[in-house]
Amino acid sequence: MDTRGPSPRPAADPVRQASRKRVIDIIRERGPVARVEITDHTGLSPATVTSVTADLLDEGLIRLADVHGAAGETVGQPSRGRPRTLLEIEPDAGFAIGVKLSLDQISATLTNMSGEIIGTDLTQAPIDTMETADIVRTTADCIRAVVTKSGVETGDVKGVGVGVPGYVGYPEGDVHWSPLFDASPTPFRALLEAEIGLRAHVDNDANLIALAEKWFGVGRHHSSFLVVTVEHGVGMGLVVDNRLYRGSRGLGAEFGHTKLVVGGALCRCGQRGCIEAYVSDYAIVREASIFDGGAAAAGHRSMRDAMDALIARADGGDANVAAVFRRAGQYLGIGIANLVDVLDPAVVILSGARTHSAKAFFSALQGALGDANEAMPRPMPSLEIHPWGDEIWARGAAALVLDEGLV
Amino acid sequence: MDTRGPSPRPAADPVRQASRKRVIDIIRERGPVARVEITDHTGLSPATVTSVTADLLDEGLIRLADVHGAAGETVGQPSRGRPRTLLEIEPDAGFAIGVKLSLDQISATLTNMSGEIIGTDLTQAPIDTMETADIVRTTADCIRAVVTKSGVETGDVKGVGVGVPGYVGYPEGDVHWSPLFDASPTPFRALLEAEIGLRAHVDNDANLIALAEKWFGVGRHHSSFLVVTVEHGVGMGLVVDNRLYRGSRGLGAEFGHTKLVVGGALCRCGQRGCIEAYVSDYAIVREASIFDGGAAAAGHRSMRDAMDALIARADGGDANVAAVFRRAGQYLGIGIANLVDVLDPAVVILSGARTHSAKAFFSALQGALGDANEAMPRPMPSLEIHPWGDEIWARGAAALVLDEGLV
Repeated sequence: MDTRGPSPRPAADPVRQASRKRVIDIIRERGPVARVEITDHTGLSPATVTSVTADLLDEGLIRLADVHGAAGETVGQPSRGRPRTLLEIEPDAGFAIGVKLSLDQISATLTNMSGEIIGTDLTQAPIDTMETADIVRTTADCIRAVVTKSGVETGDVKGVGVGVPGYVGYPEGDVHWSPLFDASPTPFRALLEAEIGLRAHVDNDANLIALAEKWFGVGRHHSSFLVVTVEHGVGMGLVVDNRLYRGSRGLGAEFGHTKLVVGGALCRCGQRGCIEAYVSDYAIVREASIFDGGAAAAGHRSMRDAMDALIARADGGDANVAAVFRRAGQYLGIGIANLVDVLDPAVVILSGARTHSAKAFFSALQGALGDANEAMPRPMPSLEIHPWGDEIWARGAAALVLDEGLV
Repeated sequence: MDTRGPSPRPAADPVRQASRKRVIDIIRERGPVARVEITDHTGLSPATVTSVTADLLDEGLIRLADVHGAAGETVGQPSRGRPRTLLEIEPDAGFAIGVKLSLDQISATLTNMSGEIIGTDLTQAPIDTMETADIVRTTADCIRAVVTKSGVETGDVKGVGVGVPGYVGYPEGDVHWSPLFDASPTPFRALLEAEIGLRAHVDNDANLIALAEKWFGVGRHHSSFLVVTVEHGVGMGLVVDNRLYRGSRGLGAEFGHTKLVVGGALCRCGQRGCIEAYVSDYAIVREASIFDGGAAAAGHRSMRDAMDALIARADGGDANVAAVFRRAGQYLGIGIANLVDVLDPAVVILSGARTHSAKAFFSALQGALGDANEAMPRPMPSLEIHPWGDEIWARGAAALVLDEGLV
């Protein structure tokens, strides 16, 4: 029996639960979808699919699709010789809250079951210098605020998905290392659930982007892809055969603290030569500080503002600042080429705030990938840059709730 | 229809073929095994399992197990209230040949269906300087020699598994880059099949070690693990959920040419800073050459002999040579820590010839892994050193044939 969460449910038959999850996943992936297609894609028997979908209809988690005239399918009408009933997720079956913790803010977004955004809340605070108890309280306040703003009942919230930078063990939600927490490990999931009285799922933040891409982005066309995120830190998320790669102990797919230069630049984790120490926002602001005695960082309200100013300078013709971005782009390209060697993804997606960066950054990034391809001739994956806003994290967090919360 | 190989078979029902493969895999993994256990582990219906196992018995690929008195199971006798017939692979259903191509030799080993070695052949030749056509001919000669030596009929050989260092696309068997071939890509599988008249499966050599570990080694206790090989080059193979990780385009899990030092030591691939350029045999011999003007390499018949001499010097108290091994061990440790970050394996296995190395190499390797763990507190996988001989490659190659050749 699951005793972790504040909403314990009766122990279910694990085979039945697995069937249920497969049916829900196919409806999410392919809906509106006919029962016969669910049978084909899950390999479950028609009897099981009929029974599981009947349960889901009863519970209001799915509904008959309104597809009059769409794609030649008509509900209840003969099509290819027999009536077909199409099923889809019921968007209003409940709500999910996606939360992202960053160095300087917490954002919370409430979505419906289809990932459509109903309401948002943004709390700015120096998270990286706060005590754990204060972070938990601030996160909880932010969650309560978005529920109130959205005008929904707390009881209709199916769960909260939280993205945290660093090494997060999943599903326990223990944070083994993060720039946001002092103690290691920090049982953030347990602390947050105790505070908010809702089921929470805590994961590495880049994994949430990968989930958002899987359900709402490139995942609709590719079953395997790699997401690399760059902003305050450098992260990655990997989807293989339509599943998030989590590794043996739920710690999988960390990228920011892999070493690109033995004994190289100092990283905020205390080690040297991590890719993050060359590519992340703080690394760029630090490096550029040599030209103005630290004014680049000190003169701005936040790291985000400092980066915007540096990007403007680089693009405006400041060769020194452009050179800083150029090295960051080159090193990120080499790091991504390393990941391509190890993982052989079909597509690499660059995401996060630093999909807005200096021109010198992107040209050096493309150059490094081109060099890697030329040096070692083999098919290279395409690089896609997805400059989605903060809502991508929220939709990924909501996807995490949908992945875990409905079975 | 499969038109690649010299032994085309009629197109089979893909669902039936998939069921057949799942049944064979469970019998290989767990045999001797009862039909009811096959049903449980495959999720196939009892009727399908009965029908598939009847086919396999008819074809002589599996047999009734001889388990008198073993583990409380008795063939055809009541056990837990009903008779249970246990099934296992028929070791003599046919033979597999495992081939490994190295810089200076080709080894071929003939095994039965259980991976037991029947005969071997070793051909020494400067493979890395030969034309592709000569490599194909020499490989074919080596294969014919092992068939003759083993006293088996060529018609009873189910297939040949070949391990090649470098970037090998699977299942096509095109070599995109290798220290052994000039052209890129080289369709080595097609060339070899045309020469030998047997079905061949060509894969990256480290993948074969991972397959051998899956079927005959650590895979019996772990469903996910990472293998790192060090000898002439540095390779890796990854098993996730009992399956070899192949990536999106069959190129997955390359390690030797990931960059550990941007702009670092020159690698034989022409790039700089690859981990192989610090850790492989040639890197160590090159680095140590500064102490004796190249005599370490020149004075020996082969790289293998040169390494043995250097290991003896380092272990015998030559501080300069020990320092060379120390850096190699440290860099390999950092490289493995990078892979642990990205992949989060439960176990890391060091394999290949360099499981025999200097004491300084291993102490530095362990030290680097310890440092990585201390710097970033999280559960680290155990490191196992498996000093198996050349037969591990052969058994892996045979496992590849068993994986692919019986369905």
